[in-house]
Amino acid sequence: MPSVIFQFYTLAIDMNTGPDIRDITDDLNRTIGRSGIENGQACLSIVGSTGSLSTIEYEPGAVQDLKAAINRLAPPDLSYAHELAWNDGNGHSHVQAALLGPSVVLPIRRGLLRLGSWQQVIAVNHDNRARRRTIEITLSGV
Amino acid sequence: MPSVIFQFYTLAIDMNTGPDIRDITDDLNRTIGRSGIENGQACLSIVGSTGSLSTIEYEPGAVQDLKAAINRLAPPDLSYAHELAWNDGNGHSHVQAALLGPSVVLPIRRGLLRLGSWQQVIAVNHDNRARRRTIEITLSGV
Amino acid sequence: MPSVIFQFYTLAIDMNTGPDIRDITDDLNRTIGRSGIENGQACLSIVGSTGSLSTIEYEPGAVQDLKAAINRLAPPDLSYAHELAWNDGNGHSHVQAALLGPSVVLPIRRGLLRLGSWQQVIAVNHDNRARRRTIEITLSGV
Repeated sequence: MPSVIFQFYTLAIDMNTGPDIRDITDDLNRTIGRSGIENGQACLSIVGSTGSLSTIEYEPGAVQDLKAAINRLAPPDLSYAHELAWNDGNGHSHVQAALLGPSVVLPIRRGLLRLGSWQQVIAVNHDNRARRRTIEITLSGV
Repeated sequence: MPSVIFQFYTLAIDMNTGPDIRDITDDLNRTIGRSGIENGQACLSIVGSTGSLSTIEYEPGAVQDLKAAINRLAPPDLSYAHELAWNDGNGHSHVQAALLGPSVVLPIRRGLLRLGSWQQVIAVNHDNRARRRTIEITLSGV
Repeated sequence: MPSVIFQFYTLAIDMNTGPDIRDITDDLNRTIGRSGIENGQACLSIVGSTGSLSTIEYEPGAVQDLKAAINRLAPPDLSYAHELAWNDGNGHSHVQAALLGPSVVLPIRRGLLRLGSWQQVIAVNHDNRARRRTIEITLSGV
Protein backbone atom coordinates (compact mmCIF):
# COMPACT_ATOMS: atom_id res chain seq x y z
CA MET A 1 0.00 0.00 0.00
CA PRO A 2 1.34 3.49 -0.80
CA SER A 3 2.05 5.60 2.26
CA VAL A 4 -0.73 7.63 3.79
CA ILE A 5 -0.68 11.40 3.30
CA PHE A 6 -2.19 14.04 5.58
CA GLN A 7 -2.33 17.62 4.29
CA PHE A 8 -3.78 20.76 5.88
CA TYR A 9 -5.08 23.88 4.18
CA THR A 10 -7.09 26.99 5.00
CA LEU A 11 -9.55 28.68 2.67
CA ALA A 12 -10.72 32.25 3.42
CA ILE A 13 -13.70 33.78 1.63
CA ASP A 14 -15.37 37.14 1.99
CA MET A 15 -19.10 36.65 2.37
CA ASN A 16 -22.10 38.93 2.52
CA THR A 17 -24.79 39.32 5.18
CA GLY A 18 -26.53 36.01 5.81
CA PRO A 19 -27.87 33.83 4.62
CA ASP A 20 -25.15 34.09 1.99
CA ILE A 21 -24.19 30.93 0.11
CA ARG A 22 -20.98 30.38 -1.86
CA ASP A 23 -19.76 27.58 -4.10
CA ILE A 24 -16.30 26.45 -2.90
CA THR A 25 -15.96 23.35 -5.11
CA ASP A 26 -13.29 24.71 -7.44
CA ASP A 27 -11.18 25.96 -4.53
CA LEU A 28 -11.36 22.52 -2.96
CA ASN A 29 -10.44 20.67 -6.14
CA ARG A 30 -7.42 22.93 -6.68
CA THR A 31 -6.31 22.21 -3.11
CA ILE A 32 -6.71 18.47 -3.60
CA GLY A 33 -4.65 18.74 -6.79
CA ARG A 34 -1.78 20.24 -4.81
CA SER A 35 -1.94 17.60 -2.06
CA GLY A 36 -0.80 14.66 -4.14
CA ILE A 37 -3.71 12.54 -2.82
CA GLU A 38 -5.39 10.33 -5.43
CA ASN A 39 -7.96 8.59 -3.24
CA GLY A 40 -9.07 9.54 0.25
CA GLN A 41 -11.31 12.02 2.01
CA ALA A 42 -11.70 15.75 2.47
CA CYS A 43 -12.82 16.72 5.99
CA LEU A 44 -14.15 20.27 5.85
CA SER A 45 -15.11 22.53 8.78
CA ILE A 46 -16.10 26.16 8.86
CA VAL A 47 -14.62 28.18 11.72
CA GLY A 48 -17.07 30.17 13.88
CA SER A 49 -20.55 29.62 15.26
CA THR A 50 -22.51 31.46 12.55
CA GLY A 51 -21.32 29.49 9.50
CA SER A 52 -22.19 26.09 8.05
CA LEU A 53 -21.28 23.74 5.20
CA SER A 54 -23.37 21.51 2.93
CA THR A 55 -23.85 20.65 -0.75
CA ILE A 56 -26.49 21.73 -3.27
CA GLU A 57 -27.01 22.22 -6.99
CA TYR A 58 -25.51 25.70 -7.12
CA GLU A 59 -27.87 27.55 -9.44
CA PRO A 60 -29.65 30.81 -8.49
CA GLY A 61 -33.08 29.22 -7.99
CA ALA A 62 -32.02 26.45 -5.63
CA VAL A 63 -29.77 28.86 -3.73
CA GLN A 64 -32.68 31.27 -3.25
CA ASP A 65 -34.93 28.41 -2.13
CA LEU A 66 -32.35 27.23 0.40
CA LYS A 67 -32.02 30.75 1.84
CA ALA A 68 -35.80 30.88 2.30
CA ALA A 69 -35.82 27.48 4.03
CA ILE A 70 -32.95 28.49 6.34
CA ASN A 71 -34.92 31.57 7.36
CA ARG A 72 -37.95 29.38 8.08
CA LEU A 73 -35.85 27.24 10.46
CA ALA A 74 -34.92 30.28 12.54
CA PRO A 75 -36.61 33.47 11.31
CA PRO A 76 -34.64 36.68 11.85
CA ASP A 77 -37.73 38.40 13.24
CA LEU A 78 -38.43 35.98 16.10
CA SER A 79 -37.47 36.95 19.65
CA TYR A 80 -34.18 35.31 20.71
CA ALA A 81 -32.78 34.88 24.24
CA HIS A 82 -29.30 35.36 22.78
CA GLU A 83 -30.42 38.78 21.55
CA LEU A 84 -31.81 39.82 24.92
CA ALA A 85 -28.42 39.09 26.51
CA TRP A 86 -26.02 40.29 23.83
CA ASN A 87 -27.94 42.68 21.58
CA ASP A 88 -25.90 41.82 18.52
CA GLY A 89 -28.93 40.96 16.43
CA ASN A 90 -27.74 37.52 15.34
CA GLY A 91 -29.69 35.09 17.53
CA HIS A 92 -31.18 33.50 14.41
CA SER A 93 -27.69 33.14 12.88
CA HIS A 94 -26.45 30.95 15.74
CA VAL A 95 -29.51 28.71 15.62
CA GLN A 96 -29.44 28.31 11.83
CA ALA A 97 -25.74 27.40 11.86
CA ALA A 98 -26.13 24.86 14.67
CA LEU A 99 -29.00 23.14 12.83
CA LEU A 100 -27.13 22.88 9.53
CA GLY A 101 -23.84 21.89 11.14
CA PRO A 102 -20.22 23.01 10.78
CA SER A 103 -18.75 20.12 8.79
CA VAL A 104 -18.99 17.78 5.85
CA VAL A 105 -16.74 14.92 4.75
CA LEU A 106 -16.44 14.17 1.05
CA PRO A 107 -14.69 11.47 -0.96
CA ILE A 108 -11.58 12.10 -3.05
CA ARG A 109 -11.38 9.82 -6.08
CA ARG A 110 -8.82 10.09 -8.91
CA GLY A 111 -7.53 13.37 -7.50
CA LEU A 112 -10.90 15.16 -7.38
CA LEU A 113 -13.91 15.44 -5.10
CA ARG A 114 -16.40 12.74 -6.03
CA LEU A 115 -19.68 14.64 -6.36
CA GLY A 116 -22.77 14.39 -8.53
CA SER A 117 -22.78 16.21 -11.87
CA TRP A 118 -24.91 19.04 -10.44
CA GLN A 119 -23.70 18.90 -6.84
CA GLN A 120 -21.48 21.66 -5.44
CA VAL A 121 -19.97 22.21 -2.00
CA ILE A 122 -21.29 25.33 -0.31
CA ALA A 123 -20.25 27.56 2.57
CA VAL A 124 -23.06 29.45 4.29
CA ASN A 125 -22.62 32.67 6.25
CA HIS A 126 -25.58 33.03 8.60
CA ASP A 127 -24.33 36.12 10.42
CA ASN A 128 -26.16 39.44 10.23
CA ARG A 129 -23.11 41.18 8.78
CA ALA A 130 -20.52 40.54 6.09
CA ARG A 131 -17.78 38.23 7.34
CA ARG A 132 -14.52 36.78 6.15
CA ARG A 133 -15.15 33.08 6.74
CA THR A 134 -12.41 30.51 7.24
CA ILE A 135 -12.74 26.88 6.15
CA GLU A 136 -10.24 24.36 7.48
CA ILE A 137 -9.47 21.56 5.05
CA THR A 138 -7.98 18.28 6.24
CA LEU A 139 -7.10 15.94 3.39
CA SER A 140 -6.04 12.36 3.98
CA GLY A 141 -5.57 9.35 1.74
CA VAL A 142 -3.13 7.67 -0.56
CA MET B 1 1.39 0.76 15.82
CA PRO B 2 -0.02 -1.40 12.98
CA SER B 3 0.07 0.25 9.58
CA VAL B 4 -2.81 2.48 8.54
CA ILE B 5 -5.25 1.15 5.94
CA PHE B 6 -7.34 3.19 3.50
CA GLN B 7 -10.04 1.34 1.55
CA PHE B 8 -12.60 2.66 -0.94
CA TYR B 9 -15.97 1.20 -1.85
CA THR B 10 -19.15 2.20 -3.68
CA LEU B 11 -22.66 1.14 -2.70
CA ALA B 12 -25.51 1.50 -5.22
CA ILE B 13 -29.14 1.21 -4.15
CA ASP B 14 -32.36 1.58 -6.08
CA MET B 15 -34.68 3.95 -4.26
CA ASN B 16 -38.25 5.09 -4.70
CA THR B 17 -39.70 8.58 -5.12
CA GLY B 18 -38.72 10.76 -2.17
CA PRO B 19 -38.69 11.01 0.63
CA ASP B 20 -37.61 7.37 0.53
CA ILE B 21 -35.48 6.08 3.39
CA ARG B 22 -33.36 2.92 3.35
CA ASP B 23 -31.34 1.11 6.01
CA ILE B 24 -27.77 0.58 4.72
CA THR B 25 -26.21 -0.67 7.98
CA ASP B 26 -25.76 -4.31 6.92
CA ASP B 27 -24.18 -3.30 3.61
CA LEU B 28 -21.73 -1.10 5.48
CA ASN B 29 -20.80 -3.75 8.02
CA ARG B 30 -20.15 -6.28 5.26
CA THR B 31 -17.89 -3.76 3.54
CA ILE B 32 -15.99 -3.06 6.75
CA GLY B 33 -15.54 -6.82 7.23
CA ARG B 34 -13.82 -7.04 3.84
CA SER B 35 -11.52 -4.07 4.52
CA GLY B 36 -9.44 -5.65 7.26
CA ILE B 37 -9.89 -2.58 9.47
CA GLU B 38 -10.49 -3.34 13.15
CA ASN B 39 -10.66 0.21 14.50
CA GLY B 40 -11.09 3.44 12.56
CA GLN B 41 -13.76 5.44 10.84
CA ALA B 42 -16.25 5.14 7.99
CA CYS B 43 -16.66 8.38 6.02
CA LEU B 44 -19.90 8.10 4.04
CA SER B 45 -21.17 10.48 1.34
CA ILE B 46 -24.14 10.21 -0.96
CA VAL B 47 -23.51 11.33 -4.55
CA GLY B 48 -25.92 13.89 -6.00
CA SER B 49 -27.73 16.95 -4.73
CA THR B 50 -31.07 15.31 -3.89
CA GLY B 51 -29.85 12.66 -1.44
CA SER B 52 -28.78 12.70 2.19
CA LEU B 53 -27.45 10.45 4.95
CA SER B 54 -28.23 10.19 8.66
CA THR B 55 -29.07 7.61 11.34
CA ILE B 56 -32.39 6.66 12.96
CA GLU B 57 -34.13 3.76 14.66
CA TYR B 58 -35.21 2.06 11.46
CA GLU B 59 -38.75 0.94 12.26
CA PRO B 60 -41.80 1.86 10.17
CA GLY B 61 -43.19 4.41 12.60
CA ALA B 62 -40.02 6.47 13.05
CA VAL B 63 -39.36 6.29 9.31
CA GLN B 64 -42.84 7.62 8.56
CA ASP B 65 -42.38 10.38 11.16
CA LEU B 66 -39.06 11.41 9.63
CA LYS B 67 -40.60 11.57 6.16
CA ALA B 68 -43.31 13.90 7.50
CA ALA B 69 -40.73 16.14 9.20
CA ILE B 70 -38.61 16.30 6.03
CA ASN B 71 -41.68 17.44 4.10
CA ARG B 72 -42.34 20.12 6.71
CA LEU B 73 -38.79 21.50 6.22
CA ALA B 74 -39.41 22.00 2.49
CA PRO B 75 -42.97 21.11 1.49
CA PRO B 76 -43.41 19.77 -2.06
CA ASP B 77 -46.34 22.13 -2.65
CA LEU B 78 -44.54 25.41 -1.95
CA SER B 79 -43.41 27.59 -4.85
CA TYR B 80 -39.71 27.15 -5.63
CA ALA B 81 -37.43 29.43 -7.66
CA HIS B 82 -35.59 26.30 -8.85
CA GLU B 83 -38.86 25.08 -10.29
CA LEU B 84 -39.59 28.32 -12.14
CA ALA B 85 -36.21 28.06 -13.87
CA TRP B 86 -35.95 24.30 -14.50
CA ASN B 87 -39.47 22.88 -14.33
CA ASP B 88 -38.30 19.52 -13.09
CA GLY B 89 -40.58 19.58 -10.07
CA ASN B 90 -37.88 18.88 -7.47
CA GLY B 91 -37.19 22.26 -5.88
CA HIS B 92 -38.17 20.84 -2.48
CA SER B 93 -35.82 17.88 -3.02
CA HIS B 94 -32.75 20.10 -3.35
CA VAL B 95 -33.62 22.12 -0.26
CA GLN B 96 -34.39 19.06 1.87
CA ALA B 97 -31.12 17.38 0.90
CA ALA B 98 -29.02 20.49 1.58
CA LEU B 99 -30.56 20.87 5.05
CA LEU B 100 -29.97 17.25 6.05
CA GLY B 101 -26.48 17.09 4.55
CA PRO B 102 -24.65 14.66 2.26
CA SER B 103 -22.33 12.96 4.76
CA VAL B 104 -21.88 11.21 8.07
CA VAL B 105 -18.78 9.81 9.72
CA LEU B 106 -19.14 6.80 11.98
CA PRO B 107 -16.73 4.88 14.22
CA ILE B 108 -15.44 1.40 13.41
CA ARG B 109 -14.73 -0.65 16.53
CA ARG B 110 -13.81 -4.36 16.57
CA GLY B 111 -14.51 -4.64 12.87
CA LEU B 112 -18.04 -3.21 12.95
CA LEU B 113 -19.80 0.14 12.97
CA ARG B 114 -20.20 1.30 16.55
CA LEU B 115 -23.88 2.26 16.75
CA GLY B 116 -26.59 2.14 19.39
CA SER B 117 -28.66 -1.05 19.68
CA TRP B 118 -31.56 0.57 17.82
CA GLN B 119 -29.60 2.93 15.60
CA GLN B 120 -29.29 2.30 11.86
CA VAL B 121 -27.55 4.22 9.08
CA ILE B 122 -29.99 5.57 6.48
CA ALA B 123 -29.80 6.85 2.94
CA VAL B 124 -32.55 9.27 1.92
CA ASN B 125 -33.69 9.91 -1.64
CA HIS B 126 -35.41 13.28 -1.74
CA ASP B 127 -35.90 13.39 -5.50
CA ASN B 128 -39.37 13.40 -7.09
CA ARG B 129 -38.64 10.22 -9.00
CA ALA B 130 -37.10 6.82 -8.37
CA ARG B 131 -33.30 6.98 -8.47
CA ARG B 132 -30.33 4.66 -8.26
CA ARG B 133 -28.35 6.34 -5.50
CA THR B 134 -24.61 5.94 -5.05
CA ILE B 135 -22.89 6.06 -1.68
CA GLU B 136 -19.12 6.47 -1.56
CA ILE B 137 -17.51 4.72 1.39
CA THR B 138 -14.04 5.72 2.58
CA LEU B 139 -12.74 3.47 5.35
CA SER B 140 -9.57 4.26 7.26
CA GLY B 141 -7.99 2.89 10.40
CA VAL B 142 -5.80 0.13 11.71
CA MET C 1 6.40 12.88 6.76
CA PRO C 2 5.91 11.81 10.41
CA SER C 3 4.00 8.57 10.83
CA VAL C 4 0.23 8.67 10.95
CA ILE C 5 -1.46 8.12 14.33
CA PHE C 6 -4.95 6.71 14.93
CA GLN C 7 -6.31 6.92 18.48
CA PHE C 8 -9.71 5.89 19.87
CA TYR C 9 -11.53 7.24 22.91
CA THR C 10 -14.98 7.15 24.48
CA LEU C 11 -16.61 10.01 26.36
CA ALA C 12 -19.65 9.33 28.58
CA ILE C 13 -21.81 12.17 29.89
CA ASP C 14 -24.94 12.14 31.99
CA MET C 15 -27.59 14.29 30.35
CA ASN C 16 -31.03 15.50 31.32
CA THR C 17 -34.38 15.10 29.57
CA GLY C 18 -34.21 16.50 26.06
CA PRO C 19 -33.55 18.73 24.45
CA ASP C 20 -30.52 18.94 26.75
CA ILE C 21 -27.36 20.49 25.35
CA ARG C 22 -23.84 20.12 26.76
CA ASP C 23 -20.50 21.66 25.92
CA ILE C 24 -17.92 18.89 25.38
CA THR C 25 -15.09 21.06 23.99
CA ASP C 26 -12.79 20.82 27.03
CA ASP C 27 -13.20 17.04 27.21
CA LEU C 28 -12.24 16.79 23.55
CA ASN C 29 -9.21 19.02 23.86
CA ARG C 30 -7.93 17.02 26.83
CA THR C 31 -8.32 13.83 24.79
CA ILE C 32 -6.48 15.34 21.84
CA GLY C 33 -3.68 16.39 24.19
CA ARG C 34 -3.22 12.77 25.29
CA SER C 35 -3.21 11.43 21.71
CA GLY C 36 0.07 12.98 20.61
CA ILE C 37 -1.55 14.29 17.42
CA GLU C 38 -0.49 17.81 16.44
CA ASN C 39 -2.43 18.18 13.18
CA GLY C 40 -5.28 16.05 11.92
CA GLN C 41 -8.98 15.54 12.47
CA ALA C 42 -11.42 14.54 15.21
CA CYS C 43 -14.29 12.38 13.95
CA LEU C 44 -17.04 12.48 16.58
CA SER C 45 -20.21 10.36 16.71
CA ILE C 46 -22.86 10.06 19.38
CA VAL C 47 -24.09 6.52 20.02
CA GLY C 48 -27.87 5.97 19.90
CA SER C 49 -30.74 7.22 17.78
CA THR C 50 -31.92 10.04 20.09
CA GLY C 51 -28.68 12.04 20.32
CA SER C 52 -26.91 14.46 18.01
CA LEU C 53 -23.75 16.58 17.74
CA SER C 54 -23.12 20.10 16.44
CA THR C 55 -21.38 23.35 17.43
CA ILE C 56 -22.76 26.63 18.80
CA GLU C 57 -21.73 29.61 20.92
CA TYR C 58 -22.39 27.94 24.24
CA GLU C 59 -24.05 30.71 26.25
CA PRO C 60 -27.44 30.33 27.97
CA GLY C 61 -29.37 32.46 25.47
CA ALA C 62 -28.21 30.70 22.30
CA VAL C 63 -28.65 27.31 23.99
CA GLN C 64 -32.24 28.19 24.91
CA ASP C 65 -32.89 29.44 21.37
CA LEU C 66 -31.53 26.21 19.87
CA LYS C 67 -33.74 24.11 22.15
CA ALA C 68 -36.78 26.07 20.96
CA ALA C 69 -35.80 25.61 17.30
CA ILE C 70 -35.25 21.86 17.80
CA ASN C 71 -38.74 21.60 19.27
CA ARG C 72 -40.16 23.46 16.27
CA LEU C 73 -38.56 20.88 13.92
CA ALA C 74 -40.39 18.02 15.65
CA PRO C 75 -42.71 19.26 18.38
CA PRO C 76 -43.18 16.86 21.33
CA ASP C 77 -46.96 17.34 21.19
CA LEU C 78 -47.50 16.20 17.57
CA SER C 79 -48.86 12.72 16.89
CA TYR C 80 -46.08 10.28 15.95
CA ALA C 81 -46.40 6.89 14.26
CA HIS C 82 -43.45 5.69 16.34
CA GLU C 83 -45.49 6.49 19.44
CA LEU C 84 -48.55 4.58 18.25
CA ALA C 85 -46.39 1.47 17.81
CA TRP C 86 -44.04 1.69 20.80
CA ASN C 87 -45.68 3.99 23.32
CA ASP C 88 -42.41 5.23 24.71
CA GLY C 89 -43.27 8.89 24.19
CA ASN C 90 -40.13 9.77 22.23
CA GLY C 91 -41.27 9.92 18.61
CA HIS C 92 -40.15 13.56 18.41
CA SER C 93 -36.73 12.61 19.85
CA HIS C 94 -35.97 10.22 16.99
CA VAL C 95 -36.99 12.73 14.34
CA GLN C 96 -35.05 15.61 15.91
CA ALA C 97 -31.88 13.52 16.20
CA ALA C 98 -32.10 12.26 12.61
CA LEU C 99 -32.49 15.82 11.29
CA LEU C 100 -29.52 17.19 13.24
CA GLY C 101 -27.31 14.18 12.55
CA PRO C 102 -25.09 11.92 14.67
CA SER C 103 -21.64 13.17 13.69
CA VAL C 104 -19.28 16.08 13.14
CA VAL C 105 -15.68 16.17 12.00
CA LEU C 106 -13.42 18.93 13.28
CA PRO C 107 -9.85 19.97 12.53
CA ILE C 108 -6.97 19.45 14.96
CA ARG C 109 -4.30 22.15 14.63
CA ARG C 110 -1.30 22.58 16.99
CA GLY C 111 -2.69 19.96 19.33
CA LEU C 112 -6.13 21.54 19.81
CA LEU C 113 -9.50 21.64 18.07
CA ARG C 114 -9.48 24.54 15.62
CA LEU C 115 -12.75 26.37 16.42
CA GLY C 116 -13.92 29.98 16.42
CA SER C 117 -13.36 32.03 19.57
CA TRP C 118 -17.00 31.62 20.58
CA GLN C 119 -17.67 28.22 19.04
CA GLN C 120 -18.09 25.14 21.23
CA VAL C 121 -18.80 21.50 20.40
CA ILE C 122 -22.15 20.32 21.76
CA ALA C 123 -23.80 17.00 22.47
CA VAL C 124 -27.61 17.01 22.38
CA ASN C 125 -29.83 14.52 24.18
CA HIS C 126 -33.23 14.53 22.47
CA ASP C 127 -34.72 11.66 24.48
CA ASN C 128 -37.69 12.15 26.78
CA ARG C 129 -35.72 10.93 29.79
CA ALA C 130 -32.29 11.47 31.33
CA ARG C 131 -29.65 9.40 29.56
CA ARG C 132 -25.98 8.58 29.89
CA ARG C 133 -24.79 9.42 26.37
CA THR C 134 -21.68 7.95 24.79
CA ILE C 135 -19.56 9.82 22.26
CA GLU C 136 -17.02 7.87 20.23
CA ILE C 137 -13.93 9.86 19.35
CA THR C 138 -11.68 8.81 16.47
CA LEU C 139 -8.55 10.95 16.21
CA SER C 140 -6.20 10.71 13.26
CA GLY C 141 -3.30 12.77 12.03
CA VAL C 142 0.40 13.38 12.45
